[in-house]
Amino acid sequence: MPQNSSLSVAAIILAAGQGTRMKSRLPKVMHRIANRTMIGHVLDNLTPLAPISVTAVIAPGMDDVACEVAPHNIAYQTEALGTGHAAKSARQALADTGAETILVLFGDSPFVSTATLRKMVERRQETDKPAVVVLGMRPADPTGYGRIIIEADGSVAKIVEHKDAIAAELAVGLCNSGVMAIDAAVIWSLVERIGNDNAKGEYYLTDIVALARQAGRRCACVEAPAEELLGVNSRADLAAAEKLYQHARRHAAMSEGVTLQDPETVYFSSDTKLGRDVVIGPSVVFGPGVSIADNVEIRAFCHIEGTCIAQGAVIGPFARLRPGSEIGEDAHVGNFVETKNTKLGAGAKANHLTYLGDAEVGAKSNVGAGTITCNYDGFLKEKTLIGKGAFIGSNSSLVAPVKIGDGAIVGAGSVITRDVAADALAVARGAQVDKPDWAVQFRKAKAAEKAARKAKD
Amino acid sequence: MPQNSSLSVAAIILAAGQGTRMKSRLPKVMHRIANRTMIGHVLDNLTPLAPISVTAVIAPGMDDVACEVAPHNIAYQTEALGTGHAAKSARQALADTGAETILVLFGDSPFVSTATLRKMVERRQETDKPAVVVLGMRPADPTGYGRIIIEADGSVAKIVEHKDAIAAELAVGLCNSGVMAIDAAVIWSLVERIGNDNAKGEYYLTDIVALARQAGRRCACVEAPAEELLGVNSRADLAAAEKLYQHARRHAAMSEGVTLQDPETVYFSSDTKLGRDVVIGPSVVFGPGVSIADNVEIRAFCHIEGTCIAQGAVIGPFARLRPGSEIGEDAHVGNFVETKNTKLGAGAKANHLTYLGDAEVGAKSNVGAGTITCNYDGFLKEKTLIGKGAFIGSNSSLVAPVKIGDGAIVGAGSVITRDVAADALAVARGAQVDKPDWAVQFRKAKAAEKAARKAKD
Amino acid sequence: MPQNSSLSVAAIILAAGQGTRMKSRLPKVMHRIANRTMIGHVLDNLTPLAPISVTAVIAPGMDDVACEVAPHNIAYQTEALGTGHAAKSARQALADTGAETILVLFGDSPFVSTATLRKMVERRQETDKPAVVVLGMRPADPTGYGRIIIEADGSVAKIVEHKDAIAAELAVGLCNSGVMAIDAAVIWSLVERIGNDNAKGEYYLTDIVALARQAGRRCACVEAPAEELLGVNSRADLAAAEKLYQHARRHAAMSEGVTLQDPETVYFSSDTKLGRDVVIGPSVVFGPGVSIADNVEIRAFCHIEGTCIAQGAVIGPFARLRPGSEIGEDAHVGNFVETKNTKLGAGAKANHLTYLGDAEVGAKSNVGAGTITCNYDGFLKEKTLIGKGAFIGSNSSLVAPVKIGDGAIVGAGSVITRDVAADALAVARGAQVDKPDWAVQFRKAKAAEKAARKAKD
Repeated sequence: MPQNSSLSVAAIILAAGQGTRMKSRLPKVMHRIANRTMIGHVLDNLTPLAPISVTAVIAPGMDDVACEVAPHNIAYQTEALGTGHAAKSARQALADTGAETILVLFGDSPFVSTATLRKMVERRQETDKPAVVVLGMRPADPTGYGRIIIEADGSVAKIVEHKDAIAAELAVGLCNSGVMAIDAAVIWSLVERIGNDNAKGEYYLTDIVALARQAGRRCACVEAPAEELLGVNSRADLAAAEKLYQHARRHAAMSEGVTLQDPETVYFSSDTKLGRDVVIGPSVVFGPGVSIADNVEIRAFCHIEGTCIAQGAVIGPFARLRPGSEIGEDAHVGNFVETKNTKLGAGAKANHLTYLGDAEVGAKSNVGAGTITCNYDGFLKEKTLIGKGAFIGSNSSLVAPVKIGDGAIVGAGSVITRDVAADALAVARGAQVDKPDWAVQFRKAKAAEKAARKAKD
Repeated sequence: MPQNSSLSVAAIILAAGQGTRMKSRLPKVMHRIANRTMIGHVLDNLTPLAPISVTAVIAPGMDDVACEVAPHNIAYQTEALGTGHAAKSARQALADTGAETILVLFGDSPFVSTATLRKMVERRQETDKPAVVVLGMRPADPTGYGRIIIEADGSVAKIVEHKDAIAAELAVGLCNSGVMAIDAAVIWSLVERIGNDNAKGEYYLTDIVALARQAGRRCACVEAPAEELLGVNSRADLAAAEKLYQHARRHAAMSEGVTLQDPETVYFSSDTKLGRDVVIGPSVVFGPGVSIADNVEIRAFCHIEGTCIAQGAVIGPFARLRPGSEIGEDAHVGNFVETKNTKLGAGAKANHLTYLGDAEVGAKSNVGAGTITCNYDGFLKEKTLIGKGAFIGSNSSLVAPVKIGDGAIVGAGSVITRDVAADALAVARGAQVDKPDWAVQFRKAKAAEKAARKAKD
Repeated sequence: MPQNSSLSVAAIILAAGQGTRMKSRLPKVMHRIANRTMIGHVLDNLTPLAPISVTAVIAPGMDDVACEVAPHNIAYQTEALGTGHAAKSARQALADTGAETILVLFGDSPFVSTATLRKMVERRQETDKPAVVVLGMRPADPTGYGRIIIEADGSVAKIVEHKDAIAAELAVGLCNSGVMAIDAAVIWSLVERIGNDNAKGEYYLTDIVALARQAGRRCACVEAPAEELLGVNSRADLAAAEKLYQHARRHAAMSEGVTLQDPETVYFSSDTKLGRDVVIGPSVVFGPGVSIADNVEIRAFCHIEGTCIAQGAVIGPFARLRPGSEIGEDAHVGNFVETKNTKLGAGAKANHLTYLGDAEVGAKSNVGAGTITCNYDGFLKEKTLIGKGAFIGSNSSLVAPVKIGDGAIVGAGSVITRDVAADALAVARGAQVDKPDWAVQFRKAKAAEKAARKAKD
């Protein structure tokens, strides 16, 4: 791991935009990609740099964003007066951090990588000590972007807006992403000098490049792939960002030895962990907090969150593993089975139409089709403990709190309300009563009733 | 809404083709896109023009098409002698409609939009009163299409078939779609004059342009995007049409404030209605008749038809909502749960492995895992009524007709056959009998039996 | 069917590579496409040629490959010294086959078609009797491939490696796939003369072309579409191969009269058989051994293996049919239903939340929601036999071995442990006990307990 302590960096994340094109009650940065908010992705990418301080600039009322970035700082931008104004709102929060570099990031550009951010900060630390390092990119279509004009010596001469650019400048492919690393010693004096003498009357942080040069300081540029600068302004953008993210995750998984039968229908979370020779069928969704060991098979149509799966286990098809599930080695979870806050022991099986909630199932136990743990009485959740080598007959109800001993057997269709001792049999069901030829009379009566009802209609 | 009464339009839909490349027992126009037959799409797009009369021309034996277009008219084309002959078959049905314009549409071109049809009819009504308005398009590859040759004055000079076109004509990108708006006053006299002196001996409606001009009338052209003119001749075309349709619907949904995690795996019906901040996971299928309010979350792997979902509800994953379902505000329907003709009250929950058929569940009631409404006795469907704040224990069977009162509790694993009073507890299950150490003998005996069976094999 | 006996062919399949880029414990050729190993696909494509003998060359320890190709021969390549060395390893196994032609194939190129292989062998049999027929292809990007240089008379002059090629040779689009058909009379003498005087010190089978020409024999070339020569070296390649295979299968299905609402989410096995007017919804997975008759509807989210479905049946959504299932004419299998080794009679229904294992259900019987066949006692699987026109009440458990007679009725929620006679009613459940106002006290007590627990936490 590279040394981060030497980076001496603080960060401002601009996140005050509501994002009207999203047509949402949620602030834009709270929309999710791979089950993580966009601003969460920005924070995740910052974290490896060990920033001394992070401040998100939000609009009043965006309490959900404040919660999401906690324990990091919040600063409020009370009016939408541009990025320069937004950055200035963070001044108080960033006082006395001692950081040498301040990164300015955007909450709706979730993919700027740690490597790119590190390059920017390290560029700031090179011997020419640029006051501003701008992040450049080369989009397929540069229309609308400001162009970064480079001097002969490699420094940034200026950033020129598309509408103000002359033909030679428009021919430049290097575009301004808006992301910057700024010398903390001069940022506030420069920001204070940003004016709003423009069509919209806003303060643009981009102007800091010209102001730094006026102050006799050099500016530099670091480049990142255009994909990293993808910004989200609409739900269609959000879907495109999700696709881009998933594409990268899927290919990373395959390159590490995971088989995806149809990569395009497997959905990872940002924190999904996968062993080698994991085989994943089509249409599998991973929520947050999933960790899967080697040689596990996840069949089609599974939905897995907050679950740890040991090696050799076989899951699905049609399994739903909810948070707190731990699936043991070589265990099987079959179709239409839900687990929640449940440990399934090594070699144990729950293969059909079962709900295991707040349960522990011992090694090699067999949970029959249709078994339901009755873990909730409307007020409290209670535990079901099943020992090793137990056999739970099909269609049983286990009324928690209840304990089934090692090697015990529960008869099919039983409602178990008391603990069952090890190696005991427990049966709890009604006696079978047979009424010969009853069905003949029933069908006659019912057919008549049906006809009568129809006649009435 | 624009005034439609002034359009004075009748329509002929040519739908007599069997579509042999479909390799189907169904007439071609009965194949479905987004759960609607192709001819149904044509009718849907016509409806806003308030046509005075619509006639579908079909082949004898296509009773299913007749049903599908009812109560509109049917005319029979008894021999496959071309589009001119097909249109003529509708003459009788269109007598005395009083319409000024007759639109000629194709049952296997389901995407010609209302806006396009309106433009054609309005063009007919302009001061030059063209006898025929043809619908042109500019496909990426015009090979094989007839070209529409435009006069200096903007009127249509002629339509020239690809095989008859000279180089200058082939260079024309404007192609004939076959769709036309024709002056009702002259249509039949012109159609009668269409000849069949061609390679196939068929009567082509396209010839009406030349005949109109011979009769001293002008013809005009209106253009539509090539996508609107997509025609379906094979199952691969049908899949392509479905994809095109879904693509448009998905993007419309996103632009209105719906999040689709993977747009390409969400399938809408033509009539799906979605509120704002609806969030839809991957692999969700909407059948006909679905309406969803704001802030609803539909998780992955849901199948929803004929259902109304109130705001704040959370559905799935793995939920199947069938026709007649009404899901209340903030209600939850969880995994492996099916509802049919059922009202789930506000804040009520049915989270696991449940079938609710012909039921009403009161507000804030909790339906435990594995609950089954026994709504069918082989003859009649009966209702299950559950009050407010009731608690149905897991794995219960509710034998309809039956009523569970407000605040009542049903013990887990019960088979409820009589009404339960408000606030009462009802339990209906066998007593638990325990046989210590029984399992040890059982395992011995079974192991021996298994060995014996194997020895026999 | 063409006559194969005259082909007189034997085959060597080179399969000794571990495939390190797969990052797998499995040998590369054991990875699966459409549920069939890659080497299995190679064998499937060979089989119609009725080869006299097939030998797979594998590395020591690849016992799973040996099993997969059995009863065909195995030869071991003990060191990885190139394709020439690998082919030589098969010499012993191929002695005395009497075959005239020996095909050399690659275990990780699963798509070389039977038609292509036949063309190669037939080319060998033409009057000029080429000693070697190489298989050429024209990939979109030929970089890295050896080029096949053709003489004026159409024979192969030489194969030149990319790195050794002059500009005129690099301009040749015809590339060497490595697949060959070689005269059995000379193969071993030529192979023995292959040297290893090259950068890697390996023996390249490609050199056999030059050696054959030196021996005065002609060589010829047959071409195949580049898609047939797709080779798999990584999991990403494997996913690409799966996609290519599925694309072809989907289009073949549609051209035969199957509707796929979204072809890209339907996954076939190599042996899936489909009738006409089968309609398949989105997200359907076919494992091996599925055969479906005409007019069957498979709704979204189904997973089907080893199952035969008769005409008119309706399956799903959310159905899982496991091996040994036979679904009768017009039968229905609904949501969250699993069948395994089960016959469902004509017109029978199992529509909701059911497990049918080792069962036979008679025609027109109705299996209620939540029915579970208890087919397994931890040791043995037993059968459940249900007659014709029977009615199994919802949430019933049928404890096998058990027989339900024709027209019998099982009451909802019953646990049936004894046979039920034809037309009888069987009920096996506890009596309902009601305790008025019990819930009020319960709620008070539970709320207090909940508060106490919270206080403790």
